[in-house]
Amino acid sequence: MNILLTNDDGINSSGIYAMAKALQSLGTVHIIAPDRQQSAVGHAITLSTPLRVTKVHLDSELYGLAISGTPADCVKLGVSTLLDVKPDLVVSGINHGSNTAINILYSGTVSAASEGMLMGVRSMAVSLNSFDHTVDMNPAAEYAAMIAGQYVHSPLPLTTILNINVPPLPREEILGVRVTEQGQGAWNDHYDKRTDPYGRDYYWLAGDYEPSITNINTDDRALKEHYVSVTPIRFTLTDHEHLSALSSLQNIRI
Amino acid sequence: MNILLTNDDGINSSGIYAMAKALQSLGTVHIIAPDRQQSAVGHAITLSTPLRVTKVHLDSELYGLAISGTPADCVKLGVSTLLDVKPDLVVSGINHGSNTAINILYSGTVSAASEGMLMGVRSMAVSLNSFDHTVDMNPAAEYAAMIAGQYVHSPLPLTTILNINVPPLPREEILGVRVTEQGQGAWNDHYDKRTDPYGRDYYWLAGDYEPSITNINTDDRALKEHYVSVTPIRFTLTDHEHLSALSSLQNIRI
Repeated sequence: MNILLTNDDGINSSGIYAMAKALQSLGTVHIIAPDRQQSAVGHAITLSTPLRVTKVHLDSELYGLAISGTPADCVKLGVSTLLDVKPDLVVSGINHGSNTAINILYSGTVSAASEGMLMGVRSMAVSLNSFDHTVDMNPAAEYAAMIAGQYVHSPLPLTTILNINVPPLPREEILGVRVTEQGQGAWNDHYDKRTDPYGRDYYWLAGDYEPSITNINTDDRALKEHYVSVTPIRFTLTDHEHLSALSSLQNIRI
Repeated sequence: MNILLTNDDGINSSGIYAMAKALQSLGTVHIIAPDRQQSAVGHAITLSTPLRVTKVHLDSELYGLAISGTPADCVKLGVSTLLDVKPDLVVSGINHGSNTAINILYSGTVSAASEGMLMGVRSMAVSLNSFDHTVDMNPAAEYAAMIAGQYVHSPLPLTTILNINVPPLPREEILGVRVTEQGQGAWNDHYDKRTDPYGRDYYWLAGDYEPSITNINTDDRALKEHYVSVTPIRFTLTDHEHLSALSSLQNIRI
């Protein structure tokens, strides 16, 4: 099996390294990842500048290709151009920080998986619910590799990707896997207004995410209850339920 | 009515100017838009750098605030901080180039509307199916303003946004409005591999979009048949249909 591994924290992050090591039990791991931190880039792709590719050694045996672009760029360039074979699986992660609820929309990690899906490859995103850069990534990597091994043989359509979130706990405190729904949390956005050394104002985003822990079996609830969350997601966005609410517009001509 | 108007082509584009003029018949238009072209940024938000705000005059009466960020940044900063009132409507556009089918995922134009939705404001995205910068934006602006006037009084939930695409035709050749579904087109991605003046390789994205014109009433089909396409979209991403396909993972512990 050929696996394309990418992320949004950059090729030198601890998350992608742990994920690569765990995925080697499943097949050949091709690392193609951004050359630097790309968090919150969403599904950005690079059109106005060219992409550079640099070979980077992660240890004495493992190397990858660092791309001067976004996570979605890495998957697009990797699958279309850099890899000799079409991968059987795209894995994006392990991200520092969860990607649950609406954060899926902002997430570079998830967008790399959705780009894999758009290119016809089974794809999954993996995130650890911690911003601590010394946290042990190995339990998350092992759970994700186990899930990947089952996912490649599952009957899921290629248009559905897996969004995996893992609580930042020692292996023995993780209670197992839960198949979940996307939660309903929201951000309380606020911007710090500051003044630079030249007297000019600037604004810096400083919002707080508030997960909504309901009775529904959501991604955020699984994390809170010490489970690994696995959410199948797909990007068929039409709100069929409300097409008829727009019937007054149908056939209007001005 | 207070309308927050943004885009992804930048505050000096012809599309946002035409849209502002047409929306003035509905209420007060507050323009808060990127200070430069931001196409294909998806739902990127700016975390690692501060945002700057500059007042820009578009003509002798009309001005706006130019932001050193993405379309989603403009909506987030505008609604949370810069505007004195919560807007009744967020409009994003008019974009040069359509945003149909999977292009919704890459679109900065649509992401600004989805950010408005996330902030609890009724939101819509408007795109013209042409990259010609001399094209007449006024028919699209007039259709979009007419739709906006109906949309603010519609029974649609705030979690559903409108994605509007307009064919680049004279007013009399546009056959009217169609309420549509998100289409199924795909990109044929390829990268040009080139060599820079210093002998180093680089890659530049040069894909082609192929709309899929099926019997289904899609956005791309409406454009092809000279209709304005209005698609209600929502970001509830869970694939409920395939939750059971993952039942073998449920409660697995390693």
